[in-house]
Parts: sequence; structure tokens; C-alpha cells
Amino acid sequence: MKKYLYGVDLGGTTVKFGLFSFEGNIIENFEIKTNTSDEGIAILPDIAKAILENMEKNNIIQNEVNGIGIGVPGPVSSGVVNRCVNLGWGIVDVKNDLEKLTGINVSVSNDANVAGLGELWQGGGLGYSNLVFFTLGTGVGGAVVVDNKVIDGHAGAGGELGHAPLMDVPYLCNCGKTGCLETVASATGVVRVAKDYLTHTDEPSVLRILEHISAKDVFDAAKANDAIGLKTVEYFGKYLGYICAVVAQTNDPEAFVFGGGVSKAGQIILEVVEKYFNQYAFYALRGKTQFKLATLGNDAGIFGSAYLAKQL
Amino acid sequence: MKKYLYGVDLGGTTVKFGLFSFEGNIIENFEIKTNTSDEGIAILPDIAKAILENMEKNNIIQNEVNGIGIGVPGPVSSGVVNRCVNLGWGIVDVKNDLEKLTGINVSVSNDANVAGLGELWQGGGLGYSNLVFFTLGTGVGGAVVVDNKVIDGHAGAGGELGHAPLMDVPYLCNCGKTGCLETVASATGVVRVAKDYLTHTDEPSVLRILEHISAKDVFDAAKANDAIGLKTVEYFGKYLGYICAVVAQTNDPEAFVFGGGVSKAGQIILEVVEKYFNQYAFYALRGKTQFKLATLGNDAGIFGSAYLAKQL
Repeated sequence: MKKYLYGVDLGGTTVKFGLFSFEGNIIENFEIKTNTSDEGIAILPDIAKAILENMEKNNIIQNEVNGIGIGVPGPVSSGVVNRCVNLGWGIVDVKNDLEKLTGINVSVSNDANVAGLGELWQGGGLGYSNLVFFTLGTGVGGAVVVDNKVIDGHAGAGGELGHAPLMDVPYLCNCGKTGCLETVASATGVVRVAKDYLTHTDEPSVLRILEHISAKDVFDAAKANDAIGLKTVEYFGKYLGYICAVVAQTNDPEAFVFGGGVSKAGQIILEVVEKYFNQYAFYALRGKTQFKLATLGNDAGIFGSAYLAKQL
Repeated sequence: MKKYLYGVDLGGTTVKFGLFSFEGNIIENFEIKTNTSDEGIAILPDIAKAILENMEKNNIIQNEVNGIGIGVPGPVSSGVVNRCVNLGWGIVDVKNDLEKLTGINVSVSNDANVAGLGELWQGGGLGYSNLVFFTLGTGVGGAVVVDNKVIDGHAGAGGELGHAPLMDVPYLCNCGKTGCLETVASATGVVRVAKDYLTHTDEPSVLRILEHISAKDVFDAAKANDAIGLKTVEYFGKYLGYICAVVAQTNDPEAFVFGGGVSKAGQIILEVVEKYFNQYAFYALRGKTQFKLATLGNDAGIFGSAYLAKQL
């Protein structure tokens, strides 16, 4: 009988694991270091070893494990990862290799996709089967979930909403394009926009006295009615809300869920994004689409990968 | 044994039917008038009668029919239609009502969604399982297909790409919003943009001597290197290619397929849309996503609805 799931969140420095009951209760967390030397050749064997040791410790036999789900920091198509710069990987057939090493079925997806799936299963998206998730961190990641399945896409770019293009945004993105959503909606982006306002206006702002400005400083300033803080939050909300509207005309999800460091600003994010969403979206969607904060934090990855394992 | 499928394309003036083999060969086409009097109360009984009569004529028994698929001109969610202005309908439970009238399983979707599904099954999208379809007609309709299933969305707005918002387009849409994609990418939209160029520039153009300008005239002018024709086609391609890029960052489909009257302009459409797509899309997608013309014309609806019936 299938009683257990393993969820694996593979990052550039740490691999996080969760042992879950088939129903979705977390039984145990553990982690190992990510060994990126020699083009990351030891990573999958290390993961297999950690899982097999955990099974032995808990007297779990192979037949009792429904599967291993794993989120990786790169584009995934049919279980194969195409370049993970953070891991030193080129093309790696994660599904096949990890199945051979463990004898257990494996399901693989991109880390942002997996986090979105975790939020749908047991986080801010609980109760929905169709949602779009944004991780608003140093960059912006995304996940598109339709009927409880994450959309990887044919080139592994499904949910890559950080690189959704914006026509009249002038900022250059790390990807080489100008005007990607993450140039204005990431933590870095919010700071960039605020600094631009500070440079190009004379308006007084509490932000002017800070040596280093963080995204949190900008949102705190906005909450205190600081003019530059408010302008920056409006700019952020306008473009994020706009992209949500285009995405809604595409998939019409039940909800948009926001996680990552920037989302810690809380309700202010939801309010400004929904305001602009309602301005740009089709009348049939206004007021119907939900806007929610993520709740799982750094555990979203192991939850989502465990859910991948459940779906096997 | 299930040997047959019925595909129904319900329009404001005509209901088109196709009888298909389960494998997807069309056996027979027929049609009836759409009776929209009395809030369209006779429409579903008329459809049931036409199908039952066709079964009797062809000696088909109920058990041999896998299902009836039907495309309707309005938003659909879980088999229920929410307002079809062209039919006089309010909220109609098409699935339930038509199943009661025929004793056969029914699957319902929006007409543009169904056309996209038809193109995927046997048209310009043959061989793909993930595509996005645009009908470029008087308005712009769309369909989003993921893993061979059409996405209706939670409010029936899945694939409503004609109302995808464009930030810097000034034209008012029939829906009440400014800057919907259909204000520039529909036949009406192409003419509107061309007229705007004619009014606001002095450039010579073959379009200046025409009493009535059609979208075909504009594309023909562009093919003959007419300055206003070329500018209009660039404008059309820029915004349609841009929306394709945002959609690709969302679902990363294998292909975009273009049908409807405007698409009869042919290769010029694909070239200009792909040019701007490549400018706006993520590097991983450039050159990988395919751009195709629809091939089924007005039959896309019965093909797609037959495919819905096959999926039951």
C-alpha cells in the first residue's frame, strides 16, 4: 500500500526534503548540502542516498512510497532539466536518473512551479484547482496550475512570468530583454523604481535619508503615506495587475497567489494589484478572481514536490 | 460499441452539425435554422430533434454514440452557459438539458474554444497537444488548449484573448474597456488603424482612393509595399505578437494558430506576428514556438465539438 511521499526542494546551496503521509501530513523534514562540484555530478546520488537512508531509519519499504517529487532551479520538460546554472548542470534527465538510483517513481518540475503547486495543495491557494502563483523575491518566478497540474510548457517556460514583457518599462533585465516584469515587481525592481523616483523628483521622502533602501523600506514608506513610497507601490501594482489581467484572459484562474520576500508587505500588495487588475481585466472577471498571499514560506517547495509525488 | 460522434456548432442564425466516426472521419454534414424567438427556448429541443432524426436515418442506436459536443457563442463553465446575446439566452444548463433531451452524454464549450480544439485535432494545429488559437474576424476570439483539453476557466473567460488588454492602445472596445486586442487585431481593428494613419499622415497610399476599406485591402496594400498598408500591418503584428509573448510566458504552448477572415491574408500575418513575438518573448522560446494558419475554415466548430464528444 502506498503510504508515503517524498518532496524534494533542490536549491543551489541546500537540498530540503519532506517525508509526507499520502494524505499530505508532514512527518519529517531534513536537509543536506548541495554539492555543486564537478558540474553537480554528485547531486542526484546524494539525494537518492538521503532518501534511502531516511526510509531505512523509518522502516519504510520501497512499495510503500508512492513517489518522489522534486523541484529544480531550471526549465524542465518531460522530466529532463535543461541547464541549471546554480547547480552546474547542463542537460540532466532527473526523472530517469533518480528513478534508477532509488527504484521509486519520480516527478520533476521547476522550483517556482512546485512552490505554486504547494500553495495550491496546502497554502494560500487551498481549495482551488486553478491558480497562478508569483514568487516576488530577488527575481520573479511564477507557476501556472490548471486542474491541479502544473504547466511546464513545451520549452519549460510555462509560468516564467518574471519575464512577461511590458511594453513601456525601460529597465534592462538580466535575461537580456528590456521591460520584463521582474525589473519592476521583484525586490530589486521595487528598489530600482523607488530610486528612479527619488532621482527624478524633488518630493520629500523618508527614503531619502536611508543609506541602503530595501523593498520592505519602500512598502513601509507607502504604508506611512510617503509620496515616493506610494508612487512606487502604484507602479508595482499597475504592471503586476496588468500582467495578471492578460493571464486571466488566457487561463481565467480562480486565484492569483503571491509569495516571496516582497509579499511579506502583506495586504497592501493584494489591494494595489487587484485595483489595477480590475482596471485592465474583462468585465466578467472583475470581483470574481481572488487575490491571496502565500502561507507556506520556504516550505512551499517540499509541499509542492510531495504533491507532484502524490499525482504519480 | 461507441462508433459515432456528433459535433454541433451553434450560431445565431444557423446550427451546423457533423456526424463523425469515432476515429474522426466526417460522415455527414447537415444544418438547421436557429430559432431565437421566445428567448431561444426551442433551440435545444430543435438540436435534439435534428440529431435523433439523423440517427434514425442512419440506423444509429443510442449506445453507438460516444457523445455530442457543442460549441455555443457565450461563456461556458461546467456545461452551463451564462448569457448568449445572439441566442436570446440567459443562464442555460446546456449539458444537462441536452442530455435529458437525447439520452446521450454532452460536452459544452465556447464556440471559439471549440474552433481551436478542431484546429488542434485535424487542422492547422494537427500534431500538437498544446496550442493557442486566435480567430481574427469581426472581433477576436481565442482558445487555449493544454494537453488536448480546452481551458474554459472558472468564469468562462479562458481564451478570451480578444479582450487581452494593451496599455498604450487608445481605442474603445465594445466591451467598455479601452485598448482590448480586438480593437487593433480584428478585421474592424485593422481598418480602424489604417484609417487613423490615413487621417494623421500625408503619406501616399492606394487606400486613399477607396470608398470603403476592408482588412483585405489593407493587407493587399502592404503586400504591394504601400506605406500605410505596411505601417498598419506592423501595428497589428506588434500588438498581436506582444500578447502571444505574454501568453507564451504563461503556458508555453507548442504553437499559435490563426484563423478567421483576417488570417486569409496568409503568410504575411505569421511573419509579422512572429517577428514581434521574437522581440518580446523569453530567449528560450525564440524560434521554438510555431506560428501556423488555421485550415478548417467554417468547419472548425463541428470538428472541435466532435473532438469534445470523443473526449467524453
